[in-house]
Amino acid sequence: MAIKGILIPIGGNEDKGKNDSEKHTLEFIDEGILYHIKQQAGGQHANIVVIPTASSIPEEVGINYLAAFSTLGCENVTVLDIRKREDSEQQNAIDLITAANCIMFSGGDQSKITNKIGGTAIHHIMMERLQNEDDFVIAGTSAGAMAMTNEMIAGGRAVDAFTKGAVTMYKGLGFLEELIIDTHFIQRGRFGRVTGAIAKFPHLLGFGLAEDTGMIIKNGQCVVIGSGMVIVFDGNQITHNKEDILDIGTPMTIANLTVHVLSNGDVFDIKHRAVSVLPLEADFI
Amino acid sequence: MAIKGILIPIGGNEDKGKNDSEKHTLEFIDEGILYHIKQQAGGQHANIVVIPTASSIPEEVGINYLAAFSTLGCENVTVLDIRKREDSEQQNAIDLITAANCIMFSGGDQSKITNKIGGTAIHHIMMERLQNEDDFVIAGTSAGAMAMTNEMIAGGRAVDAFTKGAVTMYKGLGFLEELIIDTHFIQRGRFGRVTGAIAKFPHLLGFGLAEDTGMIIKNGQCVVIGSGMVIVFDGNQITHNKEDILDIGTPMTIANLTVHVLSNGDVFDIKHRAVSVLPLEADFI
Repeated sequence: MAIKGILIPIGGNEDKGKNDSEKHTLEFIDEGILYHIKQQAGGQHANIVVIPTASSIPEEVGINYLAAFSTLGCENVTVLDIRKREDSEQQNAIDLITAANCIMFSGGDQSKITNKIGGTAIHHIMMERLQNEDDFVIAGTSAGAMAMTNEMIAGGRAVDAFTKGAVTMYKGLGFLEELIIDTHFIQRGRFGRVTGAIAKFPHLLGFGLAEDTGMIIKNGQCVVIGSGMVIVFDGNQITHNKEDILDIGTPMTIANLTVHVLSNGDVFDIKHRAVSVLPLEADFI
Repeated sequence: MAIKGILIPIGGNEDKGKNDSEKHTLEFIDEGILYHIKQQAGGQHANIVVIPTASSIPEEVGINYLAAFSTLGCENVTVLDIRKREDSEQQNAIDLITAANCIMFSGGDQSKITNKIGGTAIHHIMMERLQNEDDFVIAGTSAGAMAMTNEMIAGGRAVDAFTKGAVTMYKGLGFLEELIIDTHFIQRGRFGRVTGAIAKFPHLLGFGLAEDTGMIIKNGQCVVIGSGMVIVFDGNQITHNKEDILDIGTPMTIANLTVHVLSNGDVFDIKHRAVSVLPLEADFI
């Protein structure tokens, strides 16, 4: 699927799971990243729709985003609080997604996004608009970033990684067919999870996003934004991948994985699998 | 320096720092790995000297190793409890190191090993024996593995990694000139620490050892032993390494790092930087 629109996956900053911890670190996205989303969406008058479906506390998350975008001067931000699959077929949801300049998926559990939105009317509208409109933006943090891909990491504990079967995969929303995305990459030590996913799908590119770090993806170019790093895993040169034949629970072997560590302003070209680095004298973006 | 002897670095399994937690998980090395050390040392009659200098609780650690080797039937195990630098110049220490078939360094703090042993009489004997005796074994777990290299990772928190200056390096014992070793690799998410070390020394090879996992290194061949994985970082193809020019605290950029994930029985050839994988039908070693 050729995409004309803009995708902005972000490495997240919130804790998932327990409500208490999630409340204390409410989906905080540094203004640097939210600023980029606002700019890509068209500025302060942009019509931004926040979808907090992944979260276990969607109301608080929605309010938090309204406040955060308001701080940046955004005047036209709406929360679309989809709680069940039927909500994604309602006319008000269809109208909101049809009119939005930018959709922002919150963090939480990525399977809630795919279960409640994947394959519904609003998902189809998002896909169609991404294919046809070069100024349509879909952003997402943490679970909201992971759900953007076709092959989606659904789960897997970091300490179990590198053993066959430790990473579970599921179908995502399919906005990015060539990528697999993981988030909280450095803070949660997810090197093994992404490697395990690439062992399963060696023709895809694995992207590990650090917290407060994201990418603006447009025309196949991924530009790094934020304060941390994006780790890219390219399995193009892999030899000795035993993923297909190993028993579940067996330690993995993979040789000749190519890895890039990219930071603010660096660019990865998906089609050519090539890196362009921000010149040292250039300002951060 | 050409080495004839055998080195066995292990990824560790103990907690460092606090005495309480260290006591509860006392340097436990799975018998699978200790068995390999015993075999390489010459079997049950081998003269094995345990050096618990890295530990903050050297007496307990020494007793623990005596018990563990005893379980394997080893009859000739001694603890050399070096507490201060002068102990490494004493005749009894010199005699023990001269007579040993195998030396085993415990975990703890690698800088205690380099400060109390590096450059002393017993260090010189170890170096000379490694250079000349093809059946002389030095094993080490965690800090004891990290101290084996020339350029040694002294510290650096995983979550700070990938920023310039986050990984601190120090001179190690220099048994392995071409390598940098990190341990507890998967459990503590140390991907960034090893990458940062390789950014500083791109001509060296970074080895991240998982817990309960090690390598038998002989004649430049590293054979993986134990239940986990060894992650090898080869900077030979690196482009865009900005380590030299970045300010402290700035996120890193490195492109085209080659990474291998190896498990039990797989072999890495240091000189040729090549991987040989254990055939699927072969038994684990």
